[in-house]
Parts: sequence; C-alpha cells; structure tokens
Amino acid sequence: MPIDISAKFAFETTEPTDILLQFEAAAIPEQRILSSNTSLSDAAHCARVPAGDDIGERIWLDSTGRFDVEYSATVELERMLSPISSLARVDPHDLPGEAVKYLFDSRYCQADRLQSFAHDKFGDLTGGARVMAMHGWIAENFQYVPGSSDAKTTAVDSFIERRGICRDYAHVMVTFARASGIPARFVSCYAPQVTPQDFHAVAEVFLEDPTIPGGGARGGAWYLIDATNMANAEDIVKIGVGRDAADVSFMTSFGQSEFLFSEVAVSTS
Amino acid sequence: MPIDISAKFAFETTEPTDILLQFEAAAIPEQRILSSNTSLSDAAHCARVPAGDDIGERIWLDSTGRFDVEYSATVELERMLSPISSLARVDPHDLPGEAVKYLFDSRYCQADRLQSFAHDKFGDLTGGARVMAMHGWIAENFQYVPGSSDAKTTAVDSFIERRGICRDYAHVMVTFARASGIPARFVSCYAPQVTPQDFHAVAEVFLEDPTIPGGGARGGAWYLIDATNMANAEDIVKIGVGRDAADVSFMTSFGQSEFLFSEVAVSTS
Amino acid sequence: MPIDISAKFAFETTEPTDILLQFEAAAIPEQRILSSNTSLSDAAHCARVPAGDDIGERIWLDSTGRFDVEYSATVELERMLSPISSLARVDPHDLPGEAVKYLFDSRYCQADRLQSFAHDKFGDLTGGARVMAMHGWIAENFQYVPGSSDAKTTAVDSFIERRGICRDYAHVMVTFARASGIPARFVSCYAPQVTPQDFHAVAEVFLEDPTIPGGGARGGAWYLIDATNMANAEDIVKIGVGRDAADVSFMTSFGQSEFLFSEVAVSTS
Amino acid sequence: MPIDISAKFAFETTEPTDILLQFEAAAIPEQRILSSNTSLSDAAHCARVPAGDDIGERIWLDSTGRFDVEYSATVELERMLSPISSLARVDPHDLPGEAVKYLFDSRYCQADRLQSFAHDKFGDLTGGARVMAMHGWIAENFQYVPGSSDAKTTAVDSFIERRGICRDYAHVMVTFARASGIPARFVSCYAPQVTPQDFHAVAEVFLEDPTIPGGGARGGAWYLIDATNMANAEDIVKIGVGRDAADVSFMTSFGQSEFLFSEVAVSTS
Repeated sequence: MPIDISAKFAFETTEPTDILLQFEAAAIPEQRILSSNTSLSDAAHCARVPAGDDIGERIWLDSTGRFDVEYSATVELERMLSPISSLARVDPHDLPGEAVKYLFDSRYCQADRLQSFAHDKFGDLTGGARVMAMHGWIAENFQYVPGSSDAKTTAVDSFIERRGICRDYAHVMVTFARASGIPARFVSCYAPQVTPQDFHAVAEVFLEDPTIPGGGARGGAWYLIDATNMANAEDIVKIGVGRDAADVSFMTSFGQSEFLFSEVAVSTS
Repeated sequence: MPIDISAKFAFETTEPTDILLQFEAAAIPEQRILSSNTSLSDAAHCARVPAGDDIGERIWLDSTGRFDVEYSATVELERMLSPISSLARVDPHDLPGEAVKYLFDSRYCQADRLQSFAHDKFGDLTGGARVMAMHGWIAENFQYVPGSSDAKTTAVDSFIERRGICRDYAHVMVTFARASGIPARFVSCYAPQVTPQDFHAVAEVFLEDPTIPGGGARGGAWYLIDATNMANAEDIVKIGVGRDAADVSFMTSFGQSEFLFSEVAVSTS
Repeated sequence: MPIDISAKFAFETTEPTDILLQFEAAAIPEQRILSSNTSLSDAAHCARVPAGDDIGERIWLDSTGRFDVEYSATVELERMLSPISSLARVDPHDLPGEAVKYLFDSRYCQADRLQSFAHDKFGDLTGGARVMAMHGWIAENFQYVPGSSDAKTTAVDSFIERRGICRDYAHVMVTFARASGIPARFVSCYAPQVTPQDFHAVAEVFLEDPTIPGGGARGGAWYLIDATNMANAEDIVKIGVGRDAADVSFMTSFGQSEFLFSEVAVSTS
Repeated sequence: MPIDISAKFAFETTEPTDILLQFEAAAIPEQRILSSNTSLSDAAHCARVPAGDDIGERIWLDSTGRFDVEYSATVELERMLSPISSLARVDPHDLPGEAVKYLFDSRYCQADRLQSFAHDKFGDLTGGARVMAMHGWIAENFQYVPGSSDAKTTAVDSFIERRGICRDYAHVMVTFARASGIPARFVSCYAPQVTPQDFHAVAEVFLEDPTIPGGGARGGAWYLIDATNMANAEDIVKIGVGRDAADVSFMTSFGQSEFLFSEVAVSTS
C-alpha cells in the first residue's frame, strides 16, 4: 500500500544565508520511491550531499529573499517488522562499528543524566522488553502539548516537564534506550496518522535481528518505535536519521531567517 | 622524527561490565605506525570495531575484576601543515557530506548557545583568521586548572567558568568554530609537549585545502589546533575523532567501574 | 521635580486563580507619594500584604475572567546620591543582618557560577570602583534586544548570550556584585527615560555610607545602578526589591492566565 | 525530653577570608536552650548578626589559618505537632506577608520547572494531604546515596537523578510544595536519629493552624517534614531557615578555604 506525501514550506532571508534542507523520503532498500518531485526556488548555490548514515540527502542552499519548497512523492515500504518486545539486546561487543556512536550522549539526548532513573525503573528488563516498558512509561507520564517545547528543549527538559511534541517524545525514548546500553537514533519521517499532519519524528533502536542465522555475531537491526503512538512502523517513511533533532531538522539556517509556513499531507493511496 | 608513545592504565569492575576503549594511535595515511604493541588483561569478550570516521579502532570488553592495559608505539607523522590564519572558509554548499555533521551541536558543544557571542566578537573575520582569533581569545581568557572541571563539564560551562583542562579548551574551540559555520571536531591524541604527560585533546577545523587545484569544489581539509598551546600540529598523534569528548573517551564504562591509574609518556625519538 | 506615573494592564483567567500584583510606587522615606490612585476590577478576594524588606506592598487576588488594573501617581524623590565609583566596600563582618541575604545565590542570579570570571576580570578593584567596572563591562559586551530573552532566562544564560532586556541586565549586574562579595538586590521600578516606556528593572548594591560619622560599623546604604544606562538614580521610582525577578514581578499568576496588554507612561512634571 | 547536641568542625584558609557560620540551635519560642557553649578560634574579626526570619544567628569571621569550632547545647522542644495530612491549605490571599517569599523560586528550588509534574501527579489533592503524597512519592522514588550529589546539585538535578542526601531530599520537597502554591522553606537542623550523625536538613511547609479560632484569616503555621524519614518533627532542633541550602549552610566561605573535618553527635538525654 503506497504512501502519498506532499509537503510545502517557505522561508525568507534578508541577506545571503546558508540553509540546509532535508525533507525528501530517503531512497533506501526498505523504501521504494515510486515517484518523486522536488521543486525549489532559485538560489545562488544549491548542492546535494549524502546525509547521515547514507540515509537520504541534504540540500545546501545559499539563498536571499523568499524561498519556496514543494515536494511530492509516492513511496512503497518493504520493511522487516518484528514485535519489539520479544527481541533480545545485542551485546555491546557484538555491535557493528556504525551502531556504536548511537550509544553516546548527544546535544538533546543526555543519557548520562538518566542512567539512574533507567536503572531503577527498567533495570529488571533487557532488550526489546525494556524498550517497550520505556514506551509504556512515556505514554503514561507524558502529555502531547503543542507549544509546550521549543527548539532548545532537551530530553532532560522533557523528562522534567512531562510535556512535548513528537520531537520531544523521540528524544526521551532515544535517551532512555542509550541509558540502557541500547543504541538508539532519531528519525525524521512522514507518517499518515499524524494529527495534525506535519513533519514527524520517531526513535529507532538497535536490537537483535532474528532472521540472521546463528544468532548473528555483529548481528542486529534497527527498529522503529513511536513514543507518541501516532505512527506505526509499517507506514513510517524515513527522511533521515541522526543522533537527535540537531542532525535531521528539515531546515537548518546558518544565519537569520524567517520561517513563513509549512503544510504537510500524508496518506495511504 | 618518530614519536614514541607509552601508555598504561587499569580499572576494576565488580561484575561483568561492558567497557569501550580507544587509546591506540590511529593507522591513517598521515600517521605511519612504525611499531606498536598492545597488551590487555583477559576478558570474557574482546572485540575490535572501526571508530568514528574510520579513524582508529575501538575495543569492546566484557570484563570482571581488574583489567590492565599496556600500550607502546612508535609513529612517524607525515601531515600537511599550513598556517591556519591564511586559509579560507569552505562555503557550506561546497562541504563534503562527511564534514556536514561537524557543523551540528553535540553533547558538550552547544554551538547554538554561543552564536551571538561568536558573531559579536569574531564577526568581522572568516575562515582561518577567525579560527586564530578564537584561539587567541581562549588563550587570553582561560586558565588551565586541573581539577576545575569534570566529565560533565560542557563548552558552555567552561565559557562561564573560564577554567579547564585540554578537554574543555578543545570543546570551547570546537563550539566557537561551529557557531561560525566552520565544521570542527574533537581529537583525542598523544603529544610530546603535554605537561604533565597525559592523554591529550585538541580540536580540528575544516578549511580550504590550498593544494587542491582550482580552489576545489568539495575541497577542504582538516587542520589541528590546540587551544591550550601545549601541542603543535606537526607532532600530534591522533587516536580518534568525534563530535566531542563523549565520542572518543579513552575508556567508557557501561556500568560501574573504578579507575585505578593511568600513566602516559610521549617523546620524540 | 516630581515624577508622574501612569500604568494600565489587564489579564484574563478562565477559572478562579490566585494572582499576586506589585506595581505601585513604594511609600518609603526616599519616595514621597504626592498623589496616587489604584483602580482594580472586582475579585472574589483581594488582600494587601507588605512586600520584601517592607518596601512597597503586594496585592493578592483570587480572580476569574478579565481583570483590569489602572494606576496613576505623582512621586517626589529625595534620594541620597553619591558617585558610586568612590564608595568603599562594606566588610562582610560589618554588614547589617538584613543585607546578608543579598550575598546569596538566587533563582536567576547564580553568583557561584561567575566567581572565577568576576575574580579574573575585576579582581584588582573593590567596592564602588569594582561595581562601575562591571557596569562598564556589561555596557561594552551586551546588546539590548527585546525578545531575545524570556521569563526563564537566568543571569548565566544572559552572560552566555550577551543579549537581553532590563531584567537581564539587572540580573547580570546583581550576579557580578554578589560574586564579588557585595550585597546586591533586584529593583522593579518606574523611570522616565526608559525607551520604549515600560516597567523597568535595575540593580541596587550595598556599599559604604559616607554620611555615617566614624566610617560606620554596621554602616552602609543601598545604591541604585542601571546596567542598561537608561535610567538615573535620581529619577528611579522603586516599586519593590528582591533577590531577583522571581521576587518582584509586577504580576505573578499561580495558575493559567492570559496577559492582555500593558501600557506605562512615566514623565517628569 | 531534652536533646543534647555536640558539634565540632574546622577549616583552614591561607589568606584573610570572610567566612559565615550558622551552626547553633536557634533561640526561638519552640526551642528552649537549657545550656549552650560555643568556642571559636581567634579571628581578626568576629561579629554576630540575626539570621533569616530572625531564626538563629549568623557569625561573620575574618580569619586566616586554621579555625576550630566547638559547640555543645542542651535544648528542650515545645513544638506544636499536628498530623500534616489533615491540615488545609492557607489560601494565598490569607497568607501573611512573611510567608509569601517562600512561594517563589530560589537557587536550588526551581518550582517553575516542576509545576506540570506536581499538577499531573498530585493535582487531585490539596494542603497537607498533597504534602504527604509528595513525601510518599519521594520515599518511593529516591535513594539516599552519600556522594551522589554536591553543593551545586539543584532540586531539578535531584528529580532527574533520583539520588541524593538530606539536602537534596529537602530541596525536592520544598520545590514540590512551592510548585503547588504552598509556601515552603529549607531548615538546617540537628536531629538524634540521623545516620550517620551529621548536620541535617529538612523542609517546612506553611499550612493552616487549627488552633487559631475562626479558621484564622492570616492564619497558618510552619510544619516540619523530613523527606528522608530519618527525623521526626518532635525532636528536630532548628538551626536556621531559608529559601534553600544557599541561605543556611553551616559554613559559607567568601574565598578559598579548605574544610578539615566535622563531627556531630545528637542524642536524647
């Protein structure tokens, strides 16, 4: 069942400003891009570079004045789905090199600060069962309140204030997982059930891959988990991945800019 | 002129604990490892994985009880050296994909918080000249005070307290550079002039590479800079690179451990 | 030369909410209230209590719906004015008991964090000369940017970001003074030269009182100092004093409320 | 049943340093000082000033070299004791002026940050019942771990890390109460059951005073509550009160000093 995506946004700068964009569905094995159209305003410079973990692309702009982005795509997902709760942890010494960095603290996910809590609250569980217990704890203790957080809000802030939006839920999920020795990354994405429709963010955790024969030394795979419960792994279209929101904002401005609007629509065909 | 390195350290855990080590000179083109010997205590598990940006290796341990590390190596450096102050900035749209992540905020380098300051203080300079002005500002305003910071200290904390050790100096340097749109990373290293002898940390900034003909679209190279002024680019032996100290600690313990001692000696043959 | 004050503001609550107001010129020896008129909407409860250090009054409301405040007054000032730069520090053991609390850290003035900086930068000066050096440093390094801070911004945040409004300037001034062992408090006030006209905030430091014969054991007095340079000690009308903005907000809401508008006009007759 | 207190401590300074001490049982109506002896080393200056809320005294020193304090006292307590859980909240508009400041945020008690949590968790309770629910929540979620916090640790830090000592427990209790509109202060004290014997800290909340006839406009009283559960209101000997630990440290040094030791013994005769 393909997923149709349409996204528009615009911003304005008064002087030449470097802008980094990442808003397109990533062309990766689990996501077949059936069709895709990106239309951008003219800019002094415009260059594409591969994004983090080679998932998706970033677009660099050097732009002045109003800049409009229009994007539409149809994407078919072929994602391995497993019930997370039954998946074992991958022992750290069996982690592939590229997963290791997702154990470390990042700007918005200060796992070192929440290690005691994670140990006290979830210490009798491991692997996927622990991830699902964290997911349940967030659902029980957090309220989804648009406007209650901003671009500076960290996972620790959210843990204190118990309020936030998808970005904050994902940060807390990622932080709990890392504080438990489970690699976790932040995923910017599109998903049809998000209300109100908007860019979305979820977490991804690294756990065993039961399809690898022999239990898999260096085994493991990434599994999507949405702490807000709005999206399901089977219809999340990934844009990009990173350590946290600092890495995969759909727009990062290196200088003053005014954001004008965004409009996102995602549906199953 | 080869550099001789010797490092010993030990720690103890009371129960099976995952430990990540990164302490060996990285085998990279600019560093020829003439000889090297690593001796480790026995552990339940011990596995090597490539480290960040494929610079050096990490060693995973699953260890109980006392664990001793002894390492010695002789390394010959063949590093491109340029006077940083004359190097131009690489325009963001000309940055190679792998440099982009070093523009983003990280756990200990919250460049977003120091953007106003960097703009006010260094805004009339760009590229290498700006980097050297930052270097001068740190030298003038900071005091090297062992014990004045700890593993939780961030670049912002150091900026407030104006005290720190090599780790903190490197964090502030990295943060100022990123706040100026210059990719910067944290480098753990060995260097002969460090007093007292210890593991060392410096920053690395991404600027134009004047040896690339045509000014180099996608050009640029990494340049070492030591905000403490103790080490020089020509005799710094890199261990690893990362966004900040969270990524390249010589020892990271995923669970309780007691550090027993470390002893480092670095000299030019 | 009397000062004419007029202030109006309004807010709205949807359910019974406790509100604390402090907006009237304080009736204290140095301020003669020539005339004064306060008009308040009806509320379920309305009670006056003395405010901090017995300077001014607070008004408690228990109110639902829209609430309007209108206040006008004419005040004559008879304030001891001394050039701060020549005043000596009062030795701590000569401080009167009521000044001691203004040496301590408070919510928005974390003097402990800025002790190193204050020592490095101003350590060769004491008393009023040190206060004036701090005042000069702030003027040189800060920009007055409405909207750059909010109600959560602390002195440390302002020190990092070098931006703010009167509240932030006063917090930094107070923090530098306390970090130097000089009692300092936060003063909410009215002043004619404030642009744009609004409630204003300044700092007050405790230094020697040269009019006390014999140098004055337990001597000393409070001196106004405006880090923004907009107001002068001779025409500042004090509303209240406290450790920082947490103590003397003109309106504190213990529950949800929506602020509708405020309008302030201050002029010399 | 009188309480016997003995306390010794010493510190050292290398140059003349201002030191503030507060370690003696406060002479207040609820505490009859049967006998008391304070012995201090010689100092260049030594002066007593009344402490916060006129509860107890502070001693200012200007001292160089080693300084020893020896204190012993026997105190009889005559404190009004009420089961907190049945006491009603005092409506803010009925609070006496001197209680109002204990509603505000302070250095270590950032009640603004924990308002959402307090509302979500305890919002269906008021007054003493709410205080006891907070007390129960802390007991269930915190671990008393000496060494897990330091002098910089705030209530928000403790809330995140779920570890601490008496100071931290009291900070969290005070913060929860203020976040609920209940005035709360920090109390430094002696108590016989503290293990290991040391200076102790508890919270005090302002609730209705059922002994005031007519329900008491401007009524209310302070009630001791120990979040660590080590001490009981009937045998807590107050030293001083303040907004948080910043106000009532037993020793505050305005300059470099080295703490040498402390030794406390408290018992019921």
